[in-house]
Amino acid sequence: MVMMKAAVFVEPGRIVLDDKPIPDVGPLDALIRITTTTICGTDIHILKGEYPVARGLTIGHEPVGIIEKLGSAVTGYREGQRVIAGAITPSGHSNACLCGCHSQDGAGTRHGWKPLGGWRFGNSIDGSQAEYLLVPDAMVNLAPVPDGLTDEEVLMCPDIMSTGFAGAERGNIRIGDTVAVFAQGPIGLCAIAGARLKGATTIIAVDTVPVRLEMARRMGADHAVDFRSVDPVEEIMRLTDGRGVDVAIEALGTQATFEAALRVLRPGGTLSSLGVYSGDLRLPLGPFAAGLGDHTIVTSLCPGGKERMRRLMGVVASGRVDLKPLVTHRFPLERIEEAYDLFGHQRDGVLKVAITP
Amino acid sequence: MVMMKAAVFVEPGRIVLDDKPIPDVGPLDALIRITTTTICGTDIHILKGEYPVARGLTIGHEPVGIIEKLGSAVTGYREGQRVIAGAITPSGHSNACLCGCHSQDGAGTRHGWKPLGGWRFGNSIDGSQAEYLLVPDAMVNLAPVPDGLTDEEVLMCPDIMSTGFAGAERGNIRIGDTVAVFAQGPIGLCAIAGARLKGATTIIAVDTVPVRLEMARRMGADHAVDFRSVDPVEEIMRLTDGRGVDVAIEALGTQATFEAALRVLRPGGTLSSLGVYSGDLRLPLGPFAAGLGDHTIVTSLCPGGKERMRRLMGVVASGRVDLKPLVTHRFPLERIEEAYDLFGHQRDGVLKVAITP
Amino acid sequence: MVMMKAAVFVEPGRIVLDDKPIPDVGPLDALIRITTTTICGTDIHILKGEYPVARGLTIGHEPVGIIEKLGSAVTGYREGQRVIAGAITPSGHSNACLCGCHSQDGAGTRHGWKPLGGWRFGNSIDGSQAEYLLVPDAMVNLAPVPDGLTDEEVLMCPDIMSTGFAGAERGNIRIGDTVAVFAQGPIGLCAIAGARLKGATTIIAVDTVPVRLEMARRMGADHAVDFRSVDPVEEIMRLTDGRGVDVAIEALGTQATFEAALRVLRPGGTLSSLGVYSGDLRLPLGPFAAGLGDHTIVTSLCPGGKERMRRLMGVVASGRVDLKPLVTHRFPLERIEEAYDLFGHQRDGVLKVAITP
Amino acid sequence: MVMMKAAVFVEPGRIVLDDKPIPDVGPLDALIRITTTTICGTDIHILKGEYPVARGLTIGHEPVGIIEKLGSAVTGYREGQRVIAGAITPSGHSNACLCGCHSQDGAGTRHGWKPLGGWRFGNSIDGSQAEYLLVPDAMVNLAPVPDGLTDEEVLMCPDIMSTGFAGAERGNIRIGDTVAVFAQGPIGLCAIAGARLKGATTIIAVDTVPVRLEMARRMGADHAVDFRSVDPVEEIMRLTDGRGVDVAIEALGTQATFEAALRVLRPGGTLSSLGVYSGDLRLPLGPFAAGLGDHTIVTSLCPGGKERMRRLMGVVASGRVDLKPLVTHRFPLERIEEAYDLFGHQRDGVLKVAITP
Repeated sequence: MVMMKAAVFVEPGRIVLDDKPIPDVGPLDALIRITTTTICGTDIHILKGEYPVARGLTIGHEPVGIIEKLGSAVTGYREGQRVIAGAITPSGHSNACLCGCHSQDGAGTRHGWKPLGGWRFGNSIDGSQAEYLLVPDAMVNLAPVPDGLTDEEVLMCPDIMSTGFAGAERGNIRIGDTVAVFAQGPIGLCAIAGARLKGATTIIAVDTVPVRLEMARRMGADHAVDFRSVDPVEEIMRLTDGRGVDVAIEALGTQATFEAALRVLRPGGTLSSLGVYSGDLRLPLGPFAAGLGDHTIVTSLCPGGKERMRRLMGVVASGRVDLKPLVTHRFPLERIEEAYDLFGHQRDGVLKVAITP
Repeated sequence: MVMMKAAVFVEPGRIVLDDKPIPDVGPLDALIRITTTTICGTDIHILKGEYPVARGLTIGHEPVGIIEKLGSAVTGYREGQRVIAGAITPSGHSNACLCGCHSQDGAGTRHGWKPLGGWRFGNSIDGSQAEYLLVPDAMVNLAPVPDGLTDEEVLMCPDIMSTGFAGAERGNIRIGDTVAVFAQGPIGLCAIAGARLKGATTIIAVDTVPVRLEMARRMGADHAVDFRSVDPVEEIMRLTDGRGVDVAIEALGTQATFEAALRVLRPGGTLSSLGVYSGDLRLPLGPFAAGLGDHTIVTSLCPGGKERMRRLMGVVASGRVDLKPLVTHRFPLERIEEAYDLFGHQRDGVLKVAITP
Repeated sequence: MVMMKAAVFVEPGRIVLDDKPIPDVGPLDALIRITTTTICGTDIHILKGEYPVARGLTIGHEPVGIIEKLGSAVTGYREGQRVIAGAITPSGHSNACLCGCHSQDGAGTRHGWKPLGGWRFGNSIDGSQAEYLLVPDAMVNLAPVPDGLTDEEVLMCPDIMSTGFAGAERGNIRIGDTVAVFAQGPIGLCAIAGARLKGATTIIAVDTVPVRLEMARRMGADHAVDFRSVDPVEEIMRLTDGRGVDVAIEALGTQATFEAALRVLRPGGTLSSLGVYSGDLRLPLGPFAAGLGDHTIVTSLCPGGKERMRRLMGVVASGRVDLKPLVTHRFPLERIEEAYDLFGHQRDGVLKVAITP
Repeated sequence: MVMMKAAVFVEPGRIVLDDKPIPDVGPLDALIRITTTTICGTDIHILKGEYPVARGLTIGHEPVGIIEKLGSAVTGYREGQRVIAGAITPSGHSNACLCGCHSQDGAGTRHGWKPLGGWRFGNSIDGSQAEYLLVPDAMVNLAPVPDGLTDEEVLMCPDIMSTGFAGAERGNIRIGDTVAVFAQGPIGLCAIAGARLKGATTIIAVDTVPVRLEMARRMGADHAVDFRSVDPVEEIMRLTDGRGVDVAIEALGTQATFEAALRVLRPGGTLSSLGVYSGDLRLPLGPFAAGLGDHTIVTSLCPGGKERMRRLMGVVASGRVDLKPLVTHRFPLERIEEAYDLFGHQRDGVLKVAITP
């Protein structure tokens, strides 16, 4: 049995680099040799035990790599090809997929869909923080990297960029909209970039960290609101001349940001929520207009699949958006525990780390 | 000054029939002689002081009548014509109207929209429980009643039918969808009818009152769930083979119904909320899938305007839907206080009352 | 090699029953023993040589049957299960599928999509007019038939019903719309049923054959216009009080019907085209409003995949629509040449024939 | 009677500057003193007699000016305010407006909509190439110009920018789409800008005039195809790796451009047509996929109304788009006949002219 290095969840508080066998390749799978991967905020939830996964699972869901071996029934690819796969790996054949809800794939059973069913890497199967990754339903999920794009240029596509853009897309932003984005972590920053791409003409970024607000401006925000120094709701109402925003994007997962997003939303507007919440949410009566405000609230899980990846890499290749500045630190896989420590504590201005086996 | 009878809000707990002057007609207005009107659940909120309106205001927002006098700038109508107007009377010229959000009309100011701005009758101006009603922006709001339809046949169009159907429309029901409707008051019953019209093929009605569940079947429900005898969430999951519903419609305005609607919603589904809430709402973490379920939550205020009324009366005329059974009681305007008493206490199987001046 | 009977295209003018080997089952395939199938208008185009297919191909794309054998990689089904598959069999893994365009599947190549790529049975691979049918990408395409539905009750789901309903769905029919459907063959009749299900409240059927107009009324049409006795454009404008229709559905594939559909369309309306055309189409300047009428013209190929089939069978099971009257004749597979003769010449009031091996 | 100068249609071939009375102001009107206006391609159609208007009509539909006098029933504005009005001036109260189809306003009659009903200036009522302009339904149509924007910066909003952007919006361009725009006149150039704003990441401009192709690149095109030197269909298929485009925008109004747009469209794609055609159009069988390509064809008339204008001026104010380079020439109103001559013959690299009374 040939072995590889992998970052494994041992118990709450401990993700360690360990030796695991390189997986066998089933007929619909592909084995990828990872060249670059990264750590996500969700992985920190797993590390802390806030999101439960099986002990012994390899963590990570953001792979860039090279096809090492293709399953016997996989066509349309060749070994040695550079590819990425999305954080979410739909099967392509579930009822959920066939009605357009790929992220909520239902594991093929007759008896209902499980929310998050499409999220498998580092959740229900081994993930990408390893030397090798087994990609299920390879023909649905592998997207060749266009020539000329580096690993780091496409490293945000599998999750951060796909999720952040989904916030703008599901918010149904139209040309001329005013949009507020709450929290400027990597996903919020990508939501800013997505809102800009969709034609929002007034984009207001809210956060507390000056360097993140500065990055928000770089991604396309017109205004940066530091909510330690001003009340963000008052400030946004002032900036919009009392009108409120057409679309509010929540990118943190807390009551405070969700509620502020609702408070600045105009009647008929859309609150697009990206955050992962850790408790019940409250919809306050007044901002919710007692249920009579013609509001829309949407939540989104990261869209995956090779077509999504193709499009996102096309955005990168077009030069419309430059996400390279989000990669602030680099570590070899051997030092991933150190990377977890830095990223988990948000030290040293870290946004995203590149991990290279 | 010529006087008329009108049902007036005096103070919490008291709506009385009083004498008020027949209003003057401005250039864009029309004066309607009311032939039939009704009482809405919202009027009961006003009566109880739960929804604040000015003392002395005439209540009511569901008018059927005859044009008595047209404003000097109004064209396209003639005096003596039978008409209805929606509960919501958009101006047609606000920015809200011009971006398709007629119900949330903004009163023409530069400084923001007020939620519910489009609801004027019995809220910010005198309403329809009177002998005469002044309709503002008449060219936007007056819809001629097709020959052959009685007052009672179109009495549900201004509010109940428009709101209930909006629940189905905003829920984006598609052919073949499974839909649950929580609460079978007049609006819930119209949501059932609307869901049927939109092509839902499994419609589940939930309530506690047998006669209302029976009426729900008559309006098109396939299953009637009495939540005094079964747990509605368990029963709906059973009826859907564990799959949940594509669209859940809330038509009461309570935490219990809202939460049950969320619990039976499939990943990627839509919760369409019609209820008027009287307190904060809670989104429980699990059913909300921690914000990762690709859910959509929409709220709707009754759509108004003459084109909406034209379409709804067309539905009635087509015979596709028969809402006449919803009118269970009839009173002359003189006895409206008695009607409030009956309707407010939901005695005698009342669904809607017809009031005739 | 075990042999079976199959209806094979020999040359223009000749489809004959012949012996062919029962196909081998690949890892993603399923072999279905056909219990009922039918003949489509498209098959007649093939018979006449108007639509080219390879000589020796088995014709037919509307299968009802029983799983005989499952491929080694197929999960979620069992042999002996009653199933249908859509006329269109998407792979689930192409870029076309992953952006929601399943009917236009792209055969997995990097170099573009081929229109109609999703239509394989009786087009690019052997079809269903045979004792056995090999279904590719079985997990995407096999839909179990609910207990209690007969073969004939679900026989329209694979093509006729899916296509006709798509005409209503892609036309974006809303509650209260006025809809005209041109031509009352099986697809037009299903478009009537679909328009009714979507909430159209005035449905106008146009044809020349009294029995088909009668069937149109049975499927839900409010008006039947015989265009041998009246000018259909004038009649529809009269029926709509000069307003025109919100949605016009073309279900024949000729200049005359397409053009009439455009002529009765209101400004801002949608022309939903289902017909298969055999020559260039002309958009006349006036009805096209010189390109300034805010019109939408959509064309649709039959949607396929197991989720579509599940939903359509759900519609049948709900009793909302009864398509059994469309099956006017029945033949054993042995007499399929006779069935082609009857159906191709539209003799004896034939609408659809059931073929049973 | 106080007189003013106005450019008047006399007969085919002759638009001349003449004296006309300054119009009276009705209760819903506003009188605007024009400070800047321009000439549109449509005006050239009128000049040539290709589009019929009444003799004696003042031409022009692109006004920038100052409120001189408000009608007695107009509120929310003040005299002296700088405003623009859209080329299309919806009434706000027609059934067309109330179902969101403002451009196709129906003049308030019961008997049907007239296509183009919303286009009144220089079509059915006097237009903007004059010292004064009477704006009907002023509360629906007057949009205050934000401080800091010059006349020339907002001069494209009433028509060119609104129409060009509509091409992108109605084409439903999504992030990552590939878009081809046929013809780089002012509207095509604005369609390029609109496609860029909507998130298209590959934009291909087609024209024959090098300076226009150069301007297309400045507006956001990634590729410029000169169809005198290459076959545009072949070149676009090459640029898209055989895939075709997601959205094709036609901005000229000829068979050649419309047909090329259809030929490069991928299955399932959208052809968004902005051109004003002067003859019947032909849909060739192959590119139209015999009606089976899941194509969408949409046409658009310029969206108007004050909310549209507010949004477009917001886009200008945001700096996202700079349309000032489109104004290539300037004339006083006295020399408008000279301006018509230059613009009509497209001499001297003219794109748009600014006319100042």
